[in-house]
Amino acid sequence: MLFKTVAIVGVGLIGGSLGAALKDRRAAERVRGIGYRTETLQQAMQLGCVDDTTTDAAEGVRDADLVVLATPVRLIPRKAREIAPSVPSGCLITDVGSTKKLITEQLDAIFGGRARYVGSHPMAGSEKHGAANAICDLFDGALCIITPTARTDRDATRLVAQMWQAVGARITEMSPDEHDRRVAFASHLLHVASSCMVNVQSRGSLACASSGFADTTRVAASDPQLWRDICLDNSTEIAAAIDSLQGELGAFKALIEKGDADGLLRKFTQAAQTRRAWNKHRPA
Amino acid sequence: MLFKTVAIVGVGLIGGSLGAALKDRRAAERVRGIGYRTETLQQAMQLGCVDDTTTDAAEGVRDADLVVLATPVRLIPRKAREIAPSVPSGCLITDVGSTKKLITEQLDAIFGGRARYVGSHPMAGSEKHGAANAICDLFDGALCIITPTARTDRDATRLVAQMWQAVGARITEMSPDEHDRRVAFASHLLHVASSCMVNVQSRGSLACASSGFADTTRVAASDPQLWRDICLDNSTEIAAAIDSLQGELGAFKALIEKGDADGLLRKFTQAAQTRRAWNKHRPA
Repeated sequence: MLFKTVAIVGVGLIGGSLGAALKDRRAAERVRGIGYRTETLQQAMQLGCVDDTTTDAAEGVRDADLVVLATPVRLIPRKAREIAPSVPSGCLITDVGSTKKLITEQLDAIFGGRARYVGSHPMAGSEKHGAANAICDLFDGALCIITPTARTDRDATRLVAQMWQAVGARITEMSPDEHDRRVAFASHLLHVASSCMVNVQSRGSLACASSGFADTTRVAASDPQLWRDICLDNSTEIAAAIDSLQGELGAFKALIEKGDADGLLRKFTQAAQTRRAWNKHRPA
Repeated sequence: MLFKTVAIVGVGLIGGSLGAALKDRRAAERVRGIGYRTETLQQAMQLGCVDDTTTDAAEGVRDADLVVLATPVRLIPRKAREIAPSVPSGCLITDVGSTKKLITEQLDAIFGGRARYVGSHPMAGSEKHGAANAICDLFDGALCIITPTARTDRDATRLVAQMWQAVGARITEMSPDEHDRRVAFASHLLHVASSCMVNVQSRGSLACASSGFADTTRVAASDPQLWRDICLDNSTEIAAAIDSLQGELGAFKALIEKGDADGLLRKFTQAAQTRRAWNKHRPA
């Protein structure tokens, strides 16, 4: 087995699914769920996501060889500070946050030379949340971005990558900065725009909404706090991505107002070709 | 049976599915497919979408009691002019175009007192096209907007509504102006925005794209010509909808740059609540 004891702090959709997957693929001898609500922890245990549970984070990590911080983004540094004094020396630490630059700076400072931190961002999940929705194949074929820095222990990076591969994810590596820049466009911008597309609707237009609206705005039903925190954490990159989108919308609007048929056809064709090519090369 | 002979001009995804559904629900004694490519027509017949076919539109509508114009938006007035001299007096005419104001003005003028035109917009379909993708339950539970004007024959409106209900659609009625205004927000804007969200990506960000990108940009893979034409046809309303979206994106950007946590939470919460409520009341 890859690990003896994996402690997962936060057993929601991602943490719960990871626990279930680690057990299913026999990648850990024991998976421990750490949380602050006994009910949630018991549910996760009943659903087979974890082997044992505790509400005492400091105690729960004492014998772990890997700790996964799977709480919402804003709680990750707080939980890291809570466990830092009791993690075993050399313990492997990762998180599953959707932003990486700030978290990496903070966690590197918190764990220092004591534990070995490597950031992860599994691109899986949905607008659902909670261990009740956890599934052991959530990461099958999903992309997981690992974000080591120049200071990161190479063995730690390799082990964290192996953990994600064990649960079925495809791995790619980039710096936390590069991650935040790319993911601002590929994910964060789309969440903001999706929420905007919902907010501009009227009762009358919603009554005419159909499958196009359903798909395009599905992610707008996601947890508002989580997305607020992601926007605050990755503000510079997301603001730049919004600028880009506004520029492109302005270009479409100008073509529409000019009645420029060729220009519009070029824009729609560019999008359709890019989207179809992406779909074709998408593994999952 | 509701109709003796239904002539469908254009047997693509929508026309082909409508033919298959009318036959499946026994709403028409005969369904005739009219198109300009023999291959396409033969495929539609082999797939059971139509009973007979012709490439001669004027001839094909001569014994029809209902003609459905199911071509792309820009061809609808052209096909209407082509069949106008040979449609039987009092013949029922509808179309399935995604815009209604310009089409209704043009078709009312073309058919005058001779045939009875009522506009339809079945909100069904996908990024796929062609009779090869036709399915007889495409309209099951889908919304179909019917757009009679003060000049429209009431019996004609009732019969066209019955036709759509026979193939499983839910009916709502509004004026062509109201339709174009509402659908600009509920559908056309989302197609434009979705294409913009694809066009602002880089190779690096596309490599990080995941299920959120897949859903949010699914409609960007749609037929570029079709969407160019819809933008040209409904330009004023779509430009106004783009303005609204840009305003809301600007509001998000300002909150992100100010680090206004409460303001962002309110915006994301408004979107999540609206989106979840819509999902709950959505019949299909």
